[in-house]
Amino acid sequence: MNAPGQPAKQGARSLDPHLRRYAARTAGMTASEIRALFAVASRPEVVSLAGGMPHLAALPLESLSAEIGDLIATDGLVALQYGSAHGVPELREQICEVMALEGIHGHPDDVVVTVGSQMGLDMVTRIFCDPGDVVLAEGPSYVGALGSFAAYQAQVVHVGMDADGLVPEALREAIAAVERAGRRIKFLYTIPNFHNPAGVTLAVQRRAEVLEICRAHGILVVEDNPYGLLGFDGQTYPALRSTDPDNVVYLGSFSKTFAAGLRVGWVLAPHAVREKLVLAAESATLCPPTLNQMVVSRYLATHDWKGQIKTYREAYRDRRDAAISALEQHMPVGSTWNKPEGGFYVWVTVPEGVDTKAMLPRAITQRVAYASGTGFYSDGLGSRQLRISYCYPTPERIREGVRRLANVIKDEMELHETFGPTVGRPVSGPQNPSPDTA
Amino acid sequence: MNAPGQPAKQGARSLDPHLRRYAARTAGMTASEIRALFAVASRPEVVSLAGGMPHLAALPLESLSAEIGDLIATDGLVALQYGSAHGVPELREQICEVMALEGIHGHPDDVVVTVGSQMGLDMVTRIFCDPGDVVLAEGPSYVGALGSFAAYQAQVVHVGMDADGLVPEALREAIAAVERAGRRIKFLYTIPNFHNPAGVTLAVQRRAEVLEICRAHGILVVEDNPYGLLGFDGQTYPALRSTDPDNVVYLGSFSKTFAAGLRVGWVLAPHAVREKLVLAAESATLCPPTLNQMVVSRYLATHDWKGQIKTYREAYRDRRDAAISALEQHMPVGSTWNKPEGGFYVWVTVPEGVDTKAMLPRAITQRVAYASGTGFYSDGLGSRQLRISYCYPTPERIREGVRRLANVIKDEMELHETFGPTVGRPVSGPQNPSPDTA
Repeated sequence: MNAPGQPAKQGARSLDPHLRRYAARTAGMTASEIRALFAVASRPEVVSLAGGMPHLAALPLESLSAEIGDLIATDGLVALQYGSAHGVPELREQICEVMALEGIHGHPDDVVVTVGSQMGLDMVTRIFCDPGDVVLAEGPSYVGALGSFAAYQAQVVHVGMDADGLVPEALREAIAAVERAGRRIKFLYTIPNFHNPAGVTLAVQRRAEVLEICRAHGILVVEDNPYGLLGFDGQTYPALRSTDPDNVVYLGSFSKTFAAGLRVGWVLAPHAVREKLVLAAESATLCPPTLNQMVVSRYLATHDWKGQIKTYREAYRDRRDAAISALEQHMPVGSTWNKPEGGFYVWVTVPEGVDTKAMLPRAITQRVAYASGTGFYSDGLGSRQLRISYCYPTPERIREGVRRLANVIKDEMELHETFGPTVGRPVSGPQNPSPDTA
Repeated sequence: MNAPGQPAKQGARSLDPHLRRYAARTAGMTASEIRALFAVASRPEVVSLAGGMPHLAALPLESLSAEIGDLIATDGLVALQYGSAHGVPELREQICEVMALEGIHGHPDDVVVTVGSQMGLDMVTRIFCDPGDVVLAEGPSYVGALGSFAAYQAQVVHVGMDADGLVPEALREAIAAVERAGRRIKFLYTIPNFHNPAGVTLAVQRRAEVLEICRAHGILVVEDNPYGLLGFDGQTYPALRSTDPDNVVYLGSFSKTFAAGLRVGWVLAPHAVREKLVLAAESATLCPPTLNQMVVSRYLATHDWKGQIKTYREAYRDRRDAAISALEQHMPVGSTWNKPEGGFYVWVTVPEGVDTKAMLPRAITQRVAYASGTGFYSDGLGSRQLRISYCYPTPERIREGVRRLANVIKDEMELHETFGPTVGRPVSGPQNPSPDTA
């Protein structure tokens, strides 16, 4: 909004003496809706179904405390010192063991440790995208990815999904349309498992087809897989990377399988790409925090991390069940949603005439918060959708939150019947992620 | 080097199937010379005067271990969870107390915590620089800053220094030249205290003048101050930010005053700029690691951190003395250097005819490493300069390293007398930082 040459849209903005100095890319940087309402939404009486904060209560804090204390006492001079931008070698080896659970045979040299997988996403976009380049992404897509693409002035073209994830035919059509327009596609960004925000999983039989389409058109695949090990019946799906190591850049994270606050993620990239990533990461942060990498490495070496993931899975399954049963019980006719088989999110479509973005302030007044659908699209769609995150609140709170949400929607429907469609604020394109909406 | 349309310069590069996909900005991403030689330079028999790794041996690891262990046990659910991109509020308050030591009256709201001050630098460049914008920086300047500027395709124009730091008249001339060329200057990047790599400090009487020049020309000042509290006689200088809060963005770091491996730095920015920084940081990493912020906050609250800085100062003064006395004892006639009053670095000019970049592999063969001067310039200068870092090796090792370095230089001079000038490799512009050369 504050790009050079563009007038400030709001009165307050014109008070910024630096207005004419900002880079053009800042025009794409806008705060998420939920963040603007954060002061209210974070009050304890509000049930937040908006945030993507993992449930940590199951972590073994006592033994972690002992391990981390010991790490500092015995290895503190390493843990508190600069490391390489590439990442701690031992951790990179362990990351390969984690990825092996999804059929990936990666080499530790090709793993780059990042400050959360958000940084991996930012670095991948940095090395591949010039302004105006096209990125294909599911519609809807992860708000944090849209934020990174906007920061590098890449243009997102959404590709449709159904209950089996990304639709290959829609991918072909999107590619053809972009090619006809003479524009350059740099990569397909996809979350194949337990999609954020859509909750769906790319069917196994579609995976080879998606890879083949991208290869045929010279399009790189960026596979973002933070939830892959959180399938509720313990199933895992073969990663796209597992069958196409040369054309897939894989993003992984310990935020959902261990602890988000450590900010340890990674990129597994084809060898030549990996070199560029390390250089990009050096100019971004010099190196990821050594302490955090060693904490994760110790945790993997000394704890039953697979058992912990099972504990998480079970907790999230209970919460998913609470969300789905409450939706079934309370939501008005005309609403639809999916039943996710893993991950954190249910994607809800509300009855016609209800605008989820316009409704959000009223929902918060009714003590429930959610993420409205528009934040997950670059093209203004999503006003009839919303995302429910069931990861953080207790099942009881989830049920109460969904009940409140259903009442708010019913109120909106009454208003709509009486006065016509609710008026949404202008659509503002991709929004920045925040931990509360990520 | 691999920008679209440019041929690969090396055979190996052409094996990269992604060659035509990279963004134009990757052309500015090149590895530092020392990193290319890292496998050899990091051997224990090599004295490395190249790296900027702080000396950590003085840290109270036992009590840190106890504090961090307690932090996880009692506050682990917060420390291991996502936080805000803005940073932990308590730490932001403490950061204001740290900055007060240099005369800064900052508000915690205007502090943004970053993953090291490198990330602060990257974020500031992200929000201000479009490709082709000019950044003014001392010549020489910090290699990591040049790397970030290159990543955003900003063009660096160097401004001369003397023993009192940045020369105001040179600043005026540089501005005039850029303005005549019709180009846009976004900010002056400056390290006023104990400069990296030049070792000099901006004289107090020059500070107001530099600020005034920048204000008069509508140029923002980015003040990078990682070493300000490491003056050897305990003196601190008034920060540029202390007298010009509206036109200075200040970058701070705990890497040199506490522990680099935690990667905790910060930006203090004018209020309007701060909002943009938070949005940029969200798309870069979502949030800085919560654990690391809480560790620094606890450390500041429970340890004698000023006493620790005094301990560091004394250790670095001893090492500076070792470096200077060894230079005086061993360096051939025609060499010059400064005597830094704080920080980590001595900037050495070698006798005419010696090329420090060409000499580096031979120096490493002689078991001493340094950072050659060219990495600190964007314009190919610096081939007669080198940086000695005295922060990490013991005084004894420093003396031995300087002795070896002097011998290498003498050998080069003999070669030069016999065969003419040494042949440098082609100058490749700014290099990426790495912890070893940062």
